[in-house]
Amino acid sequence: MADYDLILEGGTVATASDTFDADVGIRGGRIAALGTKLGSAARTIDARGMLVLPGGVDAHCHIEQESSTLLMTADDYYSGSVSAAFGGTTTFVPFAAQHKGQSLRDVVRVAHERAGPKSVIDYAFHLIVSDPSEQVMGQELPALIMDGYTSFKVYMTYEKLKIDDAQMLDVLTLAREYGAMTMVHAENNDVINWISERLLSRGYTAPKYHAISHNPIAESEASRRAIDLARLIDAPLLIVHVSTPEAAASILEARNRGLKVYGETCPQYLFLTADDLDKEGMEGAKFCCSPPPRDKAAQEAIWLGLKNGTFQVFSSDHAPYRFDETGKLNAGPNPTFKKIANGVPGLEVRLPLLFSEGVGTGRLTLNEFVALTSTNAAKLYGLHPRKGTIAVGADADIAVWDPTWKRTITHSLLHDNVDYTPYEGREVTGWPRLVLSRGRVLVEGETLHAERGSGKFLDRVPVPPKDPAATLNTPLDPAANFGARLL
Amino acid sequence: MADYDLILEGGTVATASDTFDADVGIRGGRIAALGTKLGSAARTIDARGMLVLPGGVDAHCHIEQESSTLLMTADDYYSGSVSAAFGGTTTFVPFAAQHKGQSLRDVVRVAHERAGPKSVIDYAFHLIVSDPSEQVMGQELPALIMDGYTSFKVYMTYEKLKIDDAQMLDVLTLAREYGAMTMVHAENNDVINWISERLLSRGYTAPKYHAISHNPIAESEASRRAIDLARLIDAPLLIVHVSTPEAAASILEARNRGLKVYGETCPQYLFLTADDLDKEGMEGAKFCCSPPPRDKAAQEAIWLGLKNGTFQVFSSDHAPYRFDETGKLNAGPNPTFKKIANGVPGLEVRLPLLFSEGVGTGRLTLNEFVALTSTNAAKLYGLHPRKGTIAVGADADIAVWDPTWKRTITHSLLHDNVDYTPYEGREVTGWPRLVLSRGRVLVEGETLHAERGSGKFLDRVPVPPKDPAATLNTPLDPAANFGARLL
Amino acid sequence: MADYDLILEGGTVATASDTFDADVGIRGGRIAALGTKLGSAARTIDARGMLVLPGGVDAHCHIEQESSTLLMTADDYYSGSVSAAFGGTTTFVPFAAQHKGQSLRDVVRVAHERAGPKSVIDYAFHLIVSDPSEQVMGQELPALIMDGYTSFKVYMTYEKLKIDDAQMLDVLTLAREYGAMTMVHAENNDVINWISERLLSRGYTAPKYHAISHNPIAESEASRRAIDLARLIDAPLLIVHVSTPEAAASILEARNRGLKVYGETCPQYLFLTADDLDKEGMEGAKFCCSPPPRDKAAQEAIWLGLKNGTFQVFSSDHAPYRFDETGKLNAGPNPTFKKIANGVPGLEVRLPLLFSEGVGTGRLTLNEFVALTSTNAAKLYGLHPRKGTIAVGADADIAVWDPTWKRTITHSLLHDNVDYTPYEGREVTGWPRLVLSRGRVLVEGETLHAERGSGKFLDRVPVPPKDPAATLNTPLDPAANFGARLL
Amino acid sequence: MADYDLILEGGTVATASDTFDADVGIRGGRIAALGTKLGSAARTIDARGMLVLPGGVDAHCHIEQESSTLLMTADDYYSGSVSAAFGGTTTFVPFAAQHKGQSLRDVVRVAHERAGPKSVIDYAFHLIVSDPSEQVMGQELPALIMDGYTSFKVYMTYEKLKIDDAQMLDVLTLAREYGAMTMVHAENNDVINWISERLLSRGYTAPKYHAISHNPIAESEASRRAIDLARLIDAPLLIVHVSTPEAAASILEARNRGLKVYGETCPQYLFLTADDLDKEGMEGAKFCCSPPPRDKAAQEAIWLGLKNGTFQVFSSDHAPYRFDETGKLNAGPNPTFKKIANGVPGLEVRLPLLFSEGVGTGRLTLNEFVALTSTNAAKLYGLHPRKGTIAVGADADIAVWDPTWKRTITHSLLHDNVDYTPYEGREVTGWPRLVLSRGRVLVEGETLHAERGSGKFLDRVPVPPKDPAATLNTPLDPAANFGARLL
Repeated sequence: MADYDLILEGGTVATASDTFDADVGIRGGRIAALGTKLGSAARTIDARGMLVLPGGVDAHCHIEQESSTLLMTADDYYSGSVSAAFGGTTTFVPFAAQHKGQSLRDVVRVAHERAGPKSVIDYAFHLIVSDPSEQVMGQELPALIMDGYTSFKVYMTYEKLKIDDAQMLDVLTLAREYGAMTMVHAENNDVINWISERLLSRGYTAPKYHAISHNPIAESEASRRAIDLARLIDAPLLIVHVSTPEAAASILEARNRGLKVYGETCPQYLFLTADDLDKEGMEGAKFCCSPPPRDKAAQEAIWLGLKNGTFQVFSSDHAPYRFDETGKLNAGPNPTFKKIANGVPGLEVRLPLLFSEGVGTGRLTLNEFVALTSTNAAKLYGLHPRKGTIAVGADADIAVWDPTWKRTITHSLLHDNVDYTPYEGREVTGWPRLVLSRGRVLVEGETLHAERGSGKFLDRVPVPPKDPAATLNTPLDPAANFGARLL
Repeated sequence: MADYDLILEGGTVATASDTFDADVGIRGGRIAALGTKLGSAARTIDARGMLVLPGGVDAHCHIEQESSTLLMTADDYYSGSVSAAFGGTTTFVPFAAQHKGQSLRDVVRVAHERAGPKSVIDYAFHLIVSDPSEQVMGQELPALIMDGYTSFKVYMTYEKLKIDDAQMLDVLTLAREYGAMTMVHAENNDVINWISERLLSRGYTAPKYHAISHNPIAESEASRRAIDLARLIDAPLLIVHVSTPEAAASILEARNRGLKVYGETCPQYLFLTADDLDKEGMEGAKFCCSPPPRDKAAQEAIWLGLKNGTFQVFSSDHAPYRFDETGKLNAGPNPTFKKIANGVPGLEVRLPLLFSEGVGTGRLTLNEFVALTSTNAAKLYGLHPRKGTIAVGADADIAVWDPTWKRTITHSLLHDNVDYTPYEGREVTGWPRLVLSRGRVLVEGETLHAERGSGKFLDRVPVPPKDPAATLNTPLDPAANFGARLL
Repeated sequence: MADYDLILEGGTVATASDTFDADVGIRGGRIAALGTKLGSAARTIDARGMLVLPGGVDAHCHIEQESSTLLMTADDYYSGSVSAAFGGTTTFVPFAAQHKGQSLRDVVRVAHERAGPKSVIDYAFHLIVSDPSEQVMGQELPALIMDGYTSFKVYMTYEKLKIDDAQMLDVLTLAREYGAMTMVHAENNDVINWISERLLSRGYTAPKYHAISHNPIAESEASRRAIDLARLIDAPLLIVHVSTPEAAASILEARNRGLKVYGETCPQYLFLTADDLDKEGMEGAKFCCSPPPRDKAAQEAIWLGLKNGTFQVFSSDHAPYRFDETGKLNAGPNPTFKKIANGVPGLEVRLPLLFSEGVGTGRLTLNEFVALTSTNAAKLYGLHPRKGTIAVGADADIAVWDPTWKRTITHSLLHDNVDYTPYEGREVTGWPRLVLSRGRVLVEGETLHAERGSGKFLDRVPVPPKDPAATLNTPLDPAANFGARLL
Repeated sequence: MADYDLILEGGTVATASDTFDADVGIRGGRIAALGTKLGSAARTIDARGMLVLPGGVDAHCHIEQESSTLLMTADDYYSGSVSAAFGGTTTFVPFAAQHKGQSLRDVVRVAHERAGPKSVIDYAFHLIVSDPSEQVMGQELPALIMDGYTSFKVYMTYEKLKIDDAQMLDVLTLAREYGAMTMVHAENNDVINWISERLLSRGYTAPKYHAISHNPIAESEASRRAIDLARLIDAPLLIVHVSTPEAAASILEARNRGLKVYGETCPQYLFLTADDLDKEGMEGAKFCCSPPPRDKAAQEAIWLGLKNGTFQVFSSDHAPYRFDETGKLNAGPNPTFKKIANGVPGLEVRLPLLFSEGVGTGRLTLNEFVALTSTNAAKLYGLHPRKGTIAVGADADIAVWDPTWKRTITHSLLHDNVDYTPYEGREVTGWPRLVLSRGRVLVEGETLHAERGSGKFLDRVPVPPKDPAATLNTPLDPAANFGARLL
């Protein structure tokens, strides 16, 4: 019997810290050894000239999910996971999204029903908590966290999803107590609605007004508020899809102070601007997402944030809607900016875009790229070290990356179920030639080898503080820090 | 006939900018001349060795006003104005406070009915807008501004008073368009309630928990949010009764950026701390106000803010409740901290406290003292140059101040209708010997000369931007600053 | 006999704080009264429609002074003071400049010899201390301060003038002890020389390289260093001619912290840019000054600094050199940028430029204009309240200002002895119609009424801390603040 | 023949990014494989329950080096390297220190003569450049960089070592051009000397005055200045032994802006304070180092800096002097604070102290510990990936760390040649049980196995920018960033 099921031979391995030449020996779906002259293998694949990277972890994507208006995304778990795989992403964490009145347990059950039979890559679920009722907060959510659903997102905007500040404090407190991670979509709902109403009432309805209605101040304000609430509770907080220099600065300032505040950004904030929404006719609808792309100065600030420690996570926020009546234009052929389905696709191009424009230009090191696209998300969401790195014992989720492969992004190249890409025509250098999931070849060149449903659900282990009980019962001292005592 | 009705002779006049020796000639209630050898006068008062200061303008006090729980203040316009006068304050601007459902016009009418027959000093009214209904925003408020009620306060906390962010944007927009000043009580309502509920549910009910429930973050957060909203609209904003270093820093940062953001603080944040709330039994109730006094470090930060341009206005936030069943203890002899009437008295001691501890110690110049206690408030609220300075043409509202008069503050010394003072036993140096209102002697030593109702209402003139119409109708440009265009 | 020598009738008086309509009664060269119906006067001047402003105080100008290369300025005390007067400036404070090896006493004597017989406006001298020898620091400077020379400038650049950090600490310590004000030209000498040498060695010699050699970092660095040294000693410091956003930010940050740090800027940093140095041939030499004008963004930052409290003083830094072999081109017709005489004229246009672009556009209030051009300088340099305001007892130094007078700045309009103006062709609105010095008419329209030498020297009174001796002898405590103890 | 020379079995490997269970297979002094079931080995060591960490890299230590007063350190390369090894450090980078007038080549030759025959661990040299003469800058230093001496330190203080700002610009420019790293000791020399002279002249001579003379402002100022100079040149800069909150804040601010500025701190700034210098008699001399330990608040700020990305490197700044006439007291038994030999030992306890108080308390993760003590220094100084990590191909420099080993630090425990430790009596948990260098067992428990001189010199490869020539010859554009163009 061979020593290994598979050996990747002669490649250059990169982790979030190191880059080194090594063969990778895989056994039982896991990385069994890194080294040279490792021994025999049932199969050997030549990786010379290639980078051997941990498969991407996309921690923010909407797959087979109803929006707040109950519109279903274009991608289900099959097309979504296949598209991810072709882009080098081997783990994703879509949302199990609660709508008001729903049981979180039901929501999770449905997510499993959707993902289980279809996904070709491994997955976990973030919960979306939009209705923190007594039932949810008192029973369902604690139980779900302890069952391994250790992250959830809350919204500060969208009428049907948003929670108020008191509910946010409840959520943060529970997250702290049980050891979960709270993600937040931080935009001030009143600001956006107030501007939108004025715009609509004056007849400003074109897609570009979407960007105007989501004024940068809406995002800056809500980001700071969310940080303040997390600071009060002394709970970790991750602000998703950051688009503005000010919000980035607030996150960095919090991190500088040592707060457990984290930031995420996405390709659309590096590569698109609000001008893209101002195209002929409804064409701008293709670029409508929230927060919207901003301007060139914001792009520079976001790039800086990837370098200076503002952002730990680079996700796609893949929210796939076709440019037709099933998606972007579901409210009619000429909807106001408020009725355009909200979101852009990006699951497959996330890694190639950042590699090409980040590593290729010298803005980011290869190790920073690995950290931003894979390792950090795995760590923050409890998937590391099983996912997110090339290390002994880790799942053999690997992108064998050709750093010299020049490709022009065009929709037909991609495998999602959307009918356009916002990055149409952009040339990138660097793309995976081979993608492994737990040692199985998922993608080889242009060919998919995965079976529907071969992806597995990943449950996780919450990390509560050492003595949560103690923190709950301590008498209050006026002179003491509130957060440290009340909880 | 004499050249002047009255000449104040031989004193040292101080304005916000200058200090100089001059006689003050008063004619027809106004300052007719400053100089030497001015001529003849019907009456001459010797002011040698005295400072001749503009009478104080107290821009934040609650007089004959129902709280949100409909509790009436201990002071009516008579006792309130008399107390003010004895402390050197010759103008005050109490609130005409709307409760939900009330017509602003009615509220203003009632305020006039209360003040007119009683006040011995001149007065204007800030409106409190708690119910920005269509009627109020579309008709009453614009009309009232144009009638001279050019300032109003909104609350971000108190269930029965608070407005939400969208309403705040409406108010700021209207204020900008019509040229009024928006004041804001900035504390995050959810944060305070959330903490309070946890405290009460665990049995923490003593007065000191009032301070704990009003966590500094509640104030910092709301202050920043209010600034962000004002920034969006490009409207002036004055944050009242600032107590925390962080809120002060946010105001200063906004001012450093050139925003029209202003700050006010009060004696309780310089001279009291949260420890005062932690006295035996219910004694701490005497010090309950919102925001609460903080700690020594906060006091230092507030002093610095008086010096470095954070604060323009030093007001009393006089909110007088007796320490009995008509006031502090109206909910019973042993109320929880949520049921204690909220507020401290301070109208009469405002100037002496700041003079003694500010000018007397060298922390503030005499001119800064005048600016903080009189001139700046008059300017910001449209009363200048009629009030707030010693200048030709100004009303002869003058405090003839003895900078060497040592007094120990004790309740019996004061003229308000409260039965205690939070500054009991504190020794101060400097107090007015003589107070004039429009040339009339109001107070001379320990004697009151004023007649009930001799104070006059001051209407004001709004200062709208030069082309408000233009700003309202300009088409929107995605690249342009929103605030500058939409309004 | 008339009550007054002169009454200015019907104008609008403005101080740093107030604006009011009043007649100004002048007696014995001083303002004797402000008021209406003041009485009789030997002469009455109609000021209706005019602003009655305190004459400008120009606290930074080089008059009849040798540069570090011993080049004499184009203006002597006659042409300089006349030019000042025509622009509404009634007091100036040129430099008595020490060169290495010189006795400060001699320097002061020479300054008096130059100014006394010629100046038509009142004047004081700042010392320039370039050689803080034992003789100077131990004897001359303390004695001079006590004699009323209470301000001095030091240089951090120019080979022949600069002092090092230890000497700066000596100067600051002495200034603190004796109650004087230290001004500093803050640019890092090494940075400028290092860049200059590289430029020259590569053949980059044109005037525009002057601006490149004075990299903004040279100014930012030295400004911060000077502030740090002053902070160590706890001594006041005024940074002159600030041109960069970063230096401005450092001053503001120091002021926000409550340090006694002050800032000055000049017209060239509001109205010129480095592009002006890049004109055909040697034309750019006309705009060479140090620090050099920067760019549009810097201009905006400097304007903001005038509004937000960064700058207290707006001076001309008038350094007049003709564009010929006596001045700019004294080293030959085609000098390298290092050999061009350094400085621009601006004494006469200082007030009109700031009034027109500041008050006229709404950027500054009239009172801020008065403070920046007159009052604050008088206060910081010990001339107030005799100079710098319109108040009873002050010298009757008054600019009767026509706010509607439109003029195009051109060299022939001006009265200095320079043969160009850097502001050629700029249209301004607002100029004095009449200028009084101690009640005498200096300028009336286009006519000069002053006699040579009619200006008087102004001595001043140092303001030492209350117990300088105590601070000198206190034993050192490791835990204590150094600055507060050692001195 | 066995597959491996040595297998470490059953331990938990940690890198700067990952922690995983793996055996480590070593062949030819290098890590040949990480994995399980790796194969046969000539020797197998049981590492169960142990952490398998990359050996420490101490990037700041003074070994067999003359101080600026020509005092030789107590440790030579034998005792120094042995002490390092016992503390888990397997690579160090002492200084080859130039004194004024010396040839750098000679200095390097001497360093090799000293280290080669004695060191038991691998080593490289930082140069100290104190005399950047034409010979040094034009020939020796470029040649040395290209020979692999790619880092050097400069001093802003110490009379005999300091360079001025212009020389610093030369050094930074050369470093940029040739791809070297500049380290800087950042304290303002004038400030320290100025205070020292005042102290000495007043008779304040005890050790504690060392801390007073090195006022925090001296460090803050120089740190900011160094950053400004590096910013001008756009060259990397590493500020060593940072002790103050302000200096730390300046580094972080520079890093937030994306500058290539790095920070180092040391155990003395986490575990000692200025109070330690205030012990009976001369005892305080044991704690004299520069910068000196500060206070508790500074310690907290430095801890925060280890967490928030201010500091990349945690070094010992081991500067060993015995508490006798050969060291601390070489100037006599009772020297003034200026004559005490400057420095504290710390080479052996560096890792245990940080592990115990950092990882043990939860302040730092294990991976952060590895990064701070080993990986980052290896990366910044060009030793990675050969040193600083556990990865295939890396030298097998490994500390097998027992995280549960409780020890009380006392001098007799340590292996340096100093007669005291500043950490006497401190209890720590965590110490290496076994230390490997290139696969050889150096230390096993209390036993040393290394041979004198078995350590090897590590030369390095400079990393110049891609087109240094281009940057040198580009014509200058006034509008362009200077740093990017002139070089």
